[in-house]
Amino acid sequence: MTKRCYVGLDVGGTTMKAGVVDDDGTSLGAVSLSTEAHRGQEFGLERMCETIRQAIAAAGLQLLDISAIGVATPGTMDIPGGVILDPPNLKPWRNVPVRDHIRKVFQLPTAFQNDANAAAFGEFWAGAGRDAHSLVLFTLGTGVGGGIIVGDLVLEGEHSHGAELGHMKIEITNPRQCGCGRWGCLEAYASATAVVKRAVEAVAQPGAKSQLSAYQNKAGGVTSRDIFDVAALGDTIASKIVDETAYYLAIGAMNMMHTIDPDMIVFGGGMIAAGDSFLERIRNHVKELAFPVPAEKTKICYAQLGSDAGFIGAAACGRQLFLRKAF
Amino acid sequence: MTKRCYVGLDVGGTTMKAGVVDDDGTSLGAVSLSTEAHRGQEFGLERMCETIRQAIAAAGLQLLDISAIGVATPGTMDIPGGVILDPPNLKPWRNVPVRDHIRKVFQLPTAFQNDANAAAFGEFWAGAGRDAHSLVLFTLGTGVGGGIIVGDLVLEGEHSHGAELGHMKIEITNPRQCGCGRWGCLEAYASATAVVKRAVEAVAQPGAKSQLSAYQNKAGGVTSRDIFDVAALGDTIASKIVDETAYYLAIGAMNMMHTIDPDMIVFGGGMIAAGDSFLERIRNHVKELAFPVPAEKTKICYAQLGSDAGFIGAAACGRQLFLRKAF
Repeated sequence: MTKRCYVGLDVGGTTMKAGVVDDDGTSLGAVSLSTEAHRGQEFGLERMCETIRQAIAAAGLQLLDISAIGVATPGTMDIPGGVILDPPNLKPWRNVPVRDHIRKVFQLPTAFQNDANAAAFGEFWAGAGRDAHSLVLFTLGTGVGGGIIVGDLVLEGEHSHGAELGHMKIEITNPRQCGCGRWGCLEAYASATAVVKRAVEAVAQPGAKSQLSAYQNKAGGVTSRDIFDVAALGDTIASKIVDETAYYLAIGAMNMMHTIDPDMIVFGGGMIAAGDSFLERIRNHVKELAFPVPAEKTKICYAQLGSDAGFIGAAACGRQLFLRKAF
Repeated sequence: MTKRCYVGLDVGGTTMKAGVVDDDGTSLGAVSLSTEAHRGQEFGLERMCETIRQAIAAAGLQLLDISAIGVATPGTMDIPGGVILDPPNLKPWRNVPVRDHIRKVFQLPTAFQNDANAAAFGEFWAGAGRDAHSLVLFTLGTGVGGGIIVGDLVLEGEHSHGAELGHMKIEITNPRQCGCGRWGCLEAYASATAVVKRAVEAVAQPGAKSQLSAYQNKAGGVTSRDIFDVAALGDTIASKIVDETAYYLAIGAMNMMHTIDPDMIVFGGGMIAAGDSFLERIRNHVKELAFPVPAEKTKICYAQLGSDAGFIGAAACGRQLFLRKAF
């Protein structure tokens, strides 16, 4: 018997990526198209269908070969309803009935999930968490997102707000303001944006000497990548920023270890380009912060699927729906 | 057909309580015996069996009428192994094979669970969460404990450290030290012990005027109950302590709303004697702190089963094991 195949679609603010994935979680072919959200949601829905069609063709398959589809999108959303509500990264879309549209067009069981939850499920199924029973994923980019998987359960929450890991509060006395408007959120400390902000502040201190000063005048200003690079060269201020970032992420990890207590904490997203020394710093802080048993036993590692995690995880959601015959 | 019955046993540092519970979660009779942990673990195991026997008799039943047993104990523990490891509140017990002992003596399916997890499952089954699909329970006593239930899953964690809600870190800059030795844990702010400590500090400030000063000389010193009582009479310092406690608990609730996103946050334990005005303060802080959708939709309420939650929840664990035939 040939393996069953599923299509996963990961809709992002800039591009959407779809791929065909088999029962082992192996990608058989994937394509990316630009999202162009500004052209409106009707265009967006058709663009999703087109990306799915092209992915099936790229895998050398036909629609008949596909058992189910999964679609992952950024929030805000109603996951059980299959609707994107008011997505900050997909303006001017509003109340887009993604799942029902895709299901109707392709006449296949169609799952719908938050993109970070899907990425966590992808890593769980076919990436860093392949051998885990549970994992918590932190995605480190412009913001801090996340996904929580326990057994075969994607912890999406009762109001589609599960695993908003960037928005746990970790500071009361002197909190930084988060992009969400709240104060003291993990994201306000540990996102790439926050890393840059903290570094710029540190360099602006009277008497501060750092190679980062030279980067501030370049086009686009200093990036989190610059900060990790300069830290690796021994720059004191950059090193301190990097180590504090590892500490903040270790707090996020520990808070999940003391509530979810997963097999594994996985860090993904652009910032993991910082490499193994950064991961080692996070691990060291976790060892100091957490209870002895989880500190010793919980695996702390990087994601393995890169930007494929979203569509692979979306496909995993489609597959789960199919296997449960819950459609 | 008569209803099936289960025995739940909740082992505490001072007393152990067992009760017979039917399929609807109704208690048919319960007994408490002193734990007397100092007499050793052999005595303890026999005392558990005796409490179970007396509970069955108190319900007017016989062992033949019981379908399964559940036992809940404080940590540290190996939940899947059914073993209490090194319990701070049950000294000098160590590596006590509770589940296998009870199972062998009674020859019945026997479940084992952490006491706070069991209390959460009890509230979920037969208490405040009767109509919820998921809930997070915070138990407010000498420490802050907790339990997380999602669907029929007790989130016990991979290393039996799930739902240690008192030990999420909520403060970095100026953290209080927790009883666990760590810094900035929720418990260091919001347990009954922490409330007293914060009040005593506030009253000791130069120029501080509070009715609490009078309580400090009484036998046993000021209690959290005194603080809530004096706050209700309008005492400024006590009111500030109470409101800050509500704020800290709201942070704990919000962090769970942004990660677990349950239907319901439930507060239980001795401190809820503070009454509805305290609950209302917590609710108000949650509304300010959390994302709009969970802030609006998540129910925040008090536990309903009091000190019966543990044995009712333990019985629920036994029942779950029985219904799944997972023994």
